Amino acid sequence: MKVFVAGANGQIGRHIMKLLKDSDDYTGIAMVRSKEQAEAFSEKGMEAVLADLEGSVDELAEAMKGCDAVVFTAGSGGHTGADKTLLIDLDGAVKTVEAAELANVNRFIMVSAFQANNRENWNEKIKHYYAAKHYADKALLQSGLTYTIVRPGGLVNEPGTGKVSAGEKTERDIIPREDVAKAVVACLKEEHTHNKSFDLVSGDTPIEEALKRI
Amino acid sequence: MKVFVAGANGQIGRHIMKLLKDSDDYTGIAMVRSKEQAEAFSEKGMEAVLADLEGSVDELAEAMKGCDAVVFTAGSGGHTGADKTLLIDLDGAVKTVEAAELANVNRFIMVSAFQANNRENWNEKIKHYYAAKHYADKALLQSGLTYTIVRPGGLVNEPGTGKVSAGEKTERDIIPREDVAKAVVACLKEEHTHNKSFDLVSGDTPIEEALKRI
Repeated sequence: MKVFVAGANGQIGRHIMKLLKDSDDYTGIAMVRSKEQAEAFSEKGMEAVLADLEGSVDELAEAMKGCDAVVFTAGSGGHTGADKTLLIDLDGAVKTVEAAELANVNRFIMVSAFQANNRENWNEKIKHYYAAKHYADKALLQSGLTYTIVRPGGLVNEPGTGKVSAGEKTERDIIPREDVAKAVVACLKEEHTHNKSFDLVSGDTPIEEALKRI
Repeated sequence: MKVFVAGANGQIGRHIMKLLKDSDDYTGIAMVRSKEQAEAFSEKGMEAVLADLEGSVDELAEAMKGCDAVVFTAGSGGHTGADKTLLIDLDGAVKTVEAAELANVNRFIMVSAFQANNRENWNEKIKHYYAAKHYADKALLQSGLTYTIVRPGGLVNEPGTGKVSAGEKTERDIIPREDVAKAVVACLKEEHTHNKSFDLVSGDTPIEEALKRI
């Protein structure tokens, strides 16, 4: 199963690429913007393809042709302005959804943000970021794709524990990026996650088990 | 017919309020954020109601209760950051759509931007603004409301001529804000504009005539 990863060079994306490489079932295709990034993945024995979330839907569709699933974990990050939040986190995500429809890649996993679905729970300081994630998720929900929307809590860089709490209205908490990556990869296997959205924080339940219960 | 105007204190909004006041068929209800703004409208013999596009959908629904139509012509403007573009021009607009559904105000006219529907025609310098308008328009299209989406060209402050060119793929051009306001008010009467979207620039055709032909 070939998995196209938009945002492969990001912190969660790199974990996902590594997990895919270590698995027997998947091949990760890192979508990157520069030749240098592509070479860095190649040197680690991973596949990469050049494309840009600020480019056209057609280009994105071409880049993911022949893949079986898309993971979207890209983001403009805190160092750029909110204009890029609109163009990458929202429009880039929606273009990736449109590209998946065009390229007949039917499975789409979105890395969203904790409670992005509920305006009243948006973090006041980065409310605009939540708005962007909210509308990107909405576009995926309204697409014809088989979706899973993973809404992780506060991201930290501690090593993953492999244990989480997943569902609607879980209590706000942190979660290691490595565990978010593990959950995303586990979603590829677990059909119970098809057409589901859920919050994800650190917890007591092994990831595979938690995904069966959402 | 009571017309709720979100963005009544903006440049197009003030033209719209004046046109509604001068008509026999309509009463404009200016949605404003401050008591001072409300008093300014009252002094001119116009009705105003306090509400905030950064508030809740429920508050907005309450504010427009009993109205027959909504005009959305609000915008965060060029003096604020792109975070406000996300929260006002996009999320504020969508909340207004959701509020109209909640309050059973079935008619909704959106003041959008020239070619906001076509990514390839977005102005490179304010691309993020077009993205915000694009997704706001999309939410209205997908709502159950009777919509009209007016996408004006480059806005100027010259007096209106009352003559326009309206339709899909009209050539990019300017248009006085006063003519945009006149077209919006004319849409309230012209049923042919129901569930239509169109670009609007200065032209040779009287507004009422142009709206019949879109």
